[in-house]
Amino acid sequence: MNVLVINAGSSSLKYQLLDTKTREVFAKGNAERIGIEGSFIGHEEYGKKDKLEVELPDHRTAIKHIFDILATVDEKPEGIGHRVVQGGWYFPESAVVTDETLGWVREVAPLAPLHNYAEADVIEICREMFPELGNVIVPDTAFHYNMPERAWRYAIPRDVVDTYHVRKYGAHGTSHRYIWRTVDEFMGGAAHKLVSCHLGSGASLCAIEDGACMDTTMGLTPLDGLIMGTRCGTVDPATVFYLNRVAGMSIDEIDTMMNKKSGLLAVSGVSSDSRDVCAGAAEGNEHCAMAIEMFCYRVGQLFAEMAASMGGVDTMAFTAGIGENSVELRQGVADKLAWLGVKIDPELNTIRSDDPRVISTPDSAVTVLVVPTNEELMIALDVEALLG
Amino acid sequence: MNVLVINAGSSSLKYQLLDTKTREVFAKGNAERIGIEGSFIGHEEYGKKDKLEVELPDHRTAIKHIFDILATVDEKPEGIGHRVVQGGWYFPESAVVTDETLGWVREVAPLAPLHNYAEADVIEICREMFPELGNVIVPDTAFHYNMPERAWRYAIPRDVVDTYHVRKYGAHGTSHRYIWRTVDEFMGGAAHKLVSCHLGSGASLCAIEDGACMDTTMGLTPLDGLIMGTRCGTVDPATVFYLNRVAGMSIDEIDTMMNKKSGLLAVSGVSSDSRDVCAGAAEGNEHCAMAIEMFCYRVGQLFAEMAASMGGVDTMAFTAGIGENSVELRQGVADKLAWLGVKIDPELNTIRSDDPRVISTPDSAVTVLVVPTNEELMIALDVEALLG
Repeated sequence: MNVLVINAGSSSLKYQLLDTKTREVFAKGNAERIGIEGSFIGHEEYGKKDKLEVELPDHRTAIKHIFDILATVDEKPEGIGHRVVQGGWYFPESAVVTDETLGWVREVAPLAPLHNYAEADVIEICREMFPELGNVIVPDTAFHYNMPERAWRYAIPRDVVDTYHVRKYGAHGTSHRYIWRTVDEFMGGAAHKLVSCHLGSGASLCAIEDGACMDTTMGLTPLDGLIMGTRCGTVDPATVFYLNRVAGMSIDEIDTMMNKKSGLLAVSGVSSDSRDVCAGAAEGNEHCAMAIEMFCYRVGQLFAEMAASMGGVDTMAFTAGIGENSVELRQGVADKLAWLGVKIDPELNTIRSDDPRVISTPDSAVTVLVVPTNEELMIALDVEALLG
Repeated sequence: MNVLVINAGSSSLKYQLLDTKTREVFAKGNAERIGIEGSFIGHEEYGKKDKLEVELPDHRTAIKHIFDILATVDEKPEGIGHRVVQGGWYFPESAVVTDETLGWVREVAPLAPLHNYAEADVIEICREMFPELGNVIVPDTAFHYNMPERAWRYAIPRDVVDTYHVRKYGAHGTSHRYIWRTVDEFMGGAAHKLVSCHLGSGASLCAIEDGACMDTTMGLTPLDGLIMGTRCGTVDPATVFYLNRVAGMSIDEIDTMMNKKSGLLAVSGVSSDSRDVCAGAAEGNEHCAMAIEMFCYRVGQLFAEMAASMGGVDTMAFTAGIGENSVELRQGVADKLAWLGVKIDPELNTIRSDDPRVISTPDSAVTVLVVPTNEELMIALDVEALLG
């Protein structure tokens, strides 16, 4: 099945047209700066890249342009899969778009206002403009929906939990699900307790026991857990009270600071990109070295938390930008886990490949893999399963 | 040396007169409801208990009454030790009271306004009323002051960290320090990587490597970390943003909710006291059972975090109200740690004693002890070391 996968942000719209069977990607691209001056579409077709400078006042115009571009591609979309950041309390799995399910995306939007409203709008536009194509909602939280109550429940009053749906939702669920599926296949069923380490500019760990999410490091929102490119991860929630009272910062200011100005960027003082921070550390910048140390330290601590949630761990998988590409940070994390018997082979660790691969030594207590993630393929497979 | 230990709260004042050498407690008590109608002093002398109903409009009056009561005791205080909740960025260890050190207690008070101001006032009153006695400040954070930067630093902008002194301070430091000291002595130097589990209505874990704090679960304030009697422990800091925006709750309301109405109380719906919650669970109350499960689950996860901070763990010590007395919760926590080779002997676990004791099996990978804490003795020993 040829599926068009759409990932809409508040001012961007990524797309990818691919075949679920051959996994071939026919075309992909990104409409950027929607509603902002200087908008354009970066498009790639059969490996050939193009940049189209077009006015994109809104998502509707962007979608129209994208379909015009895709009209020249021989393969035609037979269904559309929409990544939705927050499925809230409605989506234990992906779902075909109906008036009801689309309503749910809007209903839970206060949990992720920057994303869900735009995503819902894009779904609506696709339904109107291409009524012959089915649409599927693939929430990034769905994989975590059924984690045990001990893991999702916050120890705050039950009426607040129930009225405002405050709980751990997690994120990167589509990636973690893909990683489990790939590891399970690659290991021939030998993996049972997997810690999936999605380490990119956003980063989360997920404890997956025989395919089921047992816990994850992100919380109500993607702010929680690990130190990320610009996000601080877990800090005492009273930090918010304190900064409001003592520093006179507003909630919006603290929110922006913790989400956009913290993490590797804040500690290194150099960049949110781990490659820049590693380079800085190599040149002797102590703030960069501390950022790297803190990143690896927290991955090590939260890895142990995830193992605790399963009562052990037999497999570990690195994925996403850092996890797939940073030889140095993989080694740094593994060093923090030596006490659990994790041991990676320095040579295997340096090999670059687009395929899943083992990088641990034969005597490692935990099998460590690098597994390139593919959220678009996972979304397309869900579309095929529901509409194919 | 006979030391008077004072632990002042905003409306209470606990005291204890003890001998650092024999460790005998001559007298102790608690002035309660200071500044509130119905104030009284509960006093205990050589094991005899008394309740004195007296008007206590302020701390000064309370101290005067306490010294009047103590005047009838044969042993006289030779120094005063003051527990101070928050030592902030000034106290790597206990310190003799001077104008300067007392100023520090007030300067860092915004970090713990409900406690530090009252404590500073009480220190000042003691200096005025009994100029012949030396006073010592024993901050509950001092033991954590020198934890590694990777553990204390929050990944938020450095100017905010520096200007407002935002970092992990931890708490229960005096207890954790006492536990290390006692375990070290009891084990004859065989303990190197200890996770001290201070589990009371407030609760924190501390990773202690050869006497040095490597990390702890409380953060900027004692709200963070484990689920406690009425505190929620770690939650996504964005929960504060969300409740403010969506539920319209003010910062003060969220603060009160997370500190006073959450934890075991919120999940069980019954009580903040773990004994009531355990009893409820035994009677089939599912909310109580979930509260217990969440408590043990989080201790298990954060124990693993603490172990990760030391690259392993060889010794574990339970202390404080729950840690010293709850056979059931010790077993519940140990069960969560079976994957790390922790194994306690069900019979040893049921023994009640005021002495440190081992409760693990001989083949346990981690030596597990129960160690009654004694913060007052630790404070008195600091007074002796500085003034004796």
